[in-house]
Amino acid sequence: MAFRAHNFNAGPAALPLPVLEIAQKELCDFKGSGMSVIEMSHRGKEFDDVNNETNAKVRDLMGISDDYEVLFMPGGASMQFCLIPMNFIREGKSADFINTGSWATKAIKEAKVQKDINVIWDDKEENYIRCPKASEIKVNPDAEYVHICENETIGGIKYFELPECGDVPIIADMSSCIMSEVMDVNKYGMIYAGAQKNIGPSGLALCIIRKDLLERVPENICNFFKYTTHAKNASMYNTPNTWAIYILGLVCDYLKSLGGVPAMEKINREKAKILYDVIDSSDFWRCPVDKASRSIMNVVWRLPSEDLEKKFVAEAKAHNMIGLKGHRSVGGLRASIYNAVPKASVEFLAEFMKEFEKVNG
Amino acid sequence: MAFRAHNFNAGPAALPLPVLEIAQKELCDFKGSGMSVIEMSHRGKEFDDVNNETNAKVRDLMGISDDYEVLFMPGGASMQFCLIPMNFIREGKSADFINTGSWATKAIKEAKVQKDINVIWDDKEENYIRCPKASEIKVNPDAEYVHICENETIGGIKYFELPECGDVPIIADMSSCIMSEVMDVNKYGMIYAGAQKNIGPSGLALCIIRKDLLERVPENICNFFKYTTHAKNASMYNTPNTWAIYILGLVCDYLKSLGGVPAMEKINREKAKILYDVIDSSDFWRCPVDKASRSIMNVVWRLPSEDLEKKFVAEAKAHNMIGLKGHRSVGGLRASIYNAVPKASVEFLAEFMKEFEKVNG
Repeated sequence: MAFRAHNFNAGPAALPLPVLEIAQKELCDFKGSGMSVIEMSHRGKEFDDVNNETNAKVRDLMGISDDYEVLFMPGGASMQFCLIPMNFIREGKSADFINTGSWATKAIKEAKVQKDINVIWDDKEENYIRCPKASEIKVNPDAEYVHICENETIGGIKYFELPECGDVPIIADMSSCIMSEVMDVNKYGMIYAGAQKNIGPSGLALCIIRKDLLERVPENICNFFKYTTHAKNASMYNTPNTWAIYILGLVCDYLKSLGGVPAMEKINREKAKILYDVIDSSDFWRCPVDKASRSIMNVVWRLPSEDLEKKFVAEAKAHNMIGLKGHRSVGGLRASIYNAVPKASVEFLAEFMKEFEKVNG
Repeated sequence: MAFRAHNFNAGPAALPLPVLEIAQKELCDFKGSGMSVIEMSHRGKEFDDVNNETNAKVRDLMGISDDYEVLFMPGGASMQFCLIPMNFIREGKSADFINTGSWATKAIKEAKVQKDINVIWDDKEENYIRCPKASEIKVNPDAEYVHICENETIGGIKYFELPECGDVPIIADMSSCIMSEVMDVNKYGMIYAGAQKNIGPSGLALCIIRKDLLERVPENICNFFKYTTHAKNASMYNTPNTWAIYILGLVCDYLKSLGGVPAMEKINREKAKILYDVIDSSDFWRCPVDKASRSIMNVVWRLPSEDLEKKFVAEAKAHNMIGLKGHRSVGGLRASIYNAVPKASVEFLAEFMKEFEKVNG
């Protein structure tokens, strides 16, 4: 077995070792073709099968109905921040945004450049320590959509209940929580996710779009920017990121073999609890986020001083634990414990935390 | 050694076997890190090194001066078709486009949606069988740039001389010829290329931009769409396609080991001559393009009937030669003989052609 680091990177992030091993085995010769999967024409039968099968696997794992398109788009979530307002806010109309932190803010910025939008809830004063309760949100009934970031990778918070939006569709950035817990896709107008956190390598966005929204796509934008273009061409309008689609397919196989998203949710909740239990066990550790909004994918916490935080990161690294430094914009510590991070790695981290507290607490 | 097909795919296309073998070896453990290169944070030191080194390797191989930015962008050339007019045609200004076939046409379409542009030469009447001579092109002196497709992958034609443009910068789509022959980068305002033909996997565009052009980038467009954003962040504004950047770096190492771009040009010209010599040897074969514009990357030809063309493709496939069917929009046959296609594969194809003519001619 290959030597493995305990990989707590926020993204690109850990992938399942069995997935990497299959990709490694097939890398120079995909299924006896004499070619690597990355040397294959996206228009050829072999890759067309990979594309279609991966699409079907995503649909199966997430329980996506025929009312939705499933698209593989180039770039990550950052490009979607630009395309969503461009495609779905019609002339003279507006959309509502909920600001829960770094990623919601980025989505708002790219929307504001193009359209007249409303930020209907913003937790800036509390320093983005929680997601809103449903009762706090009043949606403009004529809004084209409500945009939320379902899980803030940097802030370490997640929604535990969705806002009540009536007929206004919810569009959710799920980059850091896609396929980590059971989600009812039918509650959303659109779900999108950069693949590089929970489901694959970087350079790919998974976009799940309710088909009726596609009727809004304007004529007078570039073809490449239109969701309709990518939908009509089954994500093959231009050359897609074939490697990422292939790996996403292998990740889906792996999740399925473990019992699908319900099984992942159970493991993920167990993993998160292990870390939050240590954090809650003493005043040495402090989780800055509201208990009711704690992410099960990105666990953030602080130590009594920045010097101790630096020491923690350095000693953890010496113990083969990677990626525990908080995002540079907020500091502190963070463990991203996506689907592919083994429970054993989380337990190893928890034990290390207890030892660290004994010496430094 | 791995079983290898003779891979004449137009893109994604053949990659050097030594590159694939290194990637395979390192796939589960990049340089003893205990992580795959696709599991690494793009903000970590290991990948930062990969990004910077790949940038330096591209600069070295192509002789790119400090007057230019070298950017790795998500997507392929199709996204650049949208971004170039958005970034470089200022309000009230225009740009000139030369239409040499399928890809130039796509670039024109995406520009026209956004800006007022001029198509100053269009070979539609001749059915796009050649690139213009320098003497045929009159550039509008106040154009923001002149856009060309340096090598038309589908039409199988290339420029052998550039238009005289005075102070008007040339912007060239080099997706299917980048690093295939020596190019003086200083003659261009911008060079861009989808990586998936000559230099890497899909989902990455290499963009080489003269720095003074960046002063034109408008304020009022999305940050993600601004070249300045990607330049200021060394291609790391958002999570880049880390796998493609890594493979591009390995491809650069491989090209360097063979003697760099001059050596590739020599081999590529030899490879193209082998096929064109067969095509010119009898009336059984017919190359539809003007002799003065023949591509050395994409060799296109016809047989006396479509039935014979189908037979050719099927028998070639039975002999382990892949990707010889012409693009669906033009029909016929095409061999894409990029840097990574071995001369032995081209010789094998040439021998097969001779045998095929003996039986069917």
